Amino acid sequence: MKAIRHYSEITPTDYKGDKVRNVAGRVAIGKADGAANFCMRIFEVGEGGYTPRHYHPWEHEIFVHTGHGEVFCDGKWNPVQAGSVVFVPPDAEHQIRNTGPQPLVFVCLVPPAAPEL
Amino acid sequence: MKAIRHYSEITPTDYKGDKVRNVAGRVAIGKADGAANFCMRIFEVGEGGYTPRHYHPWEHEIFVHTGHGEVFCDGKWNPVQAGSVVFVPPDAEHQIRNTGPQPLVFVCLVPPAAPEL
Repeated sequence: MKAIRHYSEITPTDYKGDKVRNVAGRVAIGKADGAANFCMRIFEVGEGGYTPRHYHPWEHEIFVHTGHGEVFCDGKWNPVQAGSVVFVPPDAEHQIRNTGPQPLVFVCLVPPAAPEL
Repeated sequence: MKAIRHYSEITPTDYKGDKVRNVAGRVAIGKADGAANFCMRIFEVGEGGYTPRHYHPWEHEIFVHTGHGEVFCDGKWNPVQAGSVVFVPPDAEHQIRNTGPQPLVFVCLVPPAAPEL
């Protein structure tokens, strides 16, 4: 069995580009751990940060761990906070932004056909 | 797209039996939402509570949202807290218990062959 660890122990990858700001991602559980059916990633969005607005043929299952933010889906921004759950179906346009001073930390799961990060 | 909601808005199911204590589970994202590849459940383990010690042919991907507890795996108890990540492979014996005064809340994902709750 894989060692239990705190997500902060995993080396983050900073996202760079003109469509993303202040976002770091970590693969918490993935294929390298023997997880064949889905991959758990953890994202930290800093103050003023946002993920790119995009869509793709795989779904997301999202759980918000800390902070306050908004998720763009169905053409509008929807508030989320620690404890919020979001299902983004395949091909749905989406984006997440931090609206508070705290880091917005969320768990985001994808199926095996998706890139892990 | 499914409405975004806080997990506490979902009706919990209390677990009953002599091998489980003070555990409530919720299906946050499942087949009824169109999630075909994996199911997100959220468990609350109250003070002094524990899940049953068991094993089954499907894996768990676990993220601890709040509280302090221990996960039994590899034949011993391992401490976890908010932010901990645990991968329980198929057929591995496991159990989770709350060791603090706060609710131990964790997200636990399973593949589609597993019961949702």
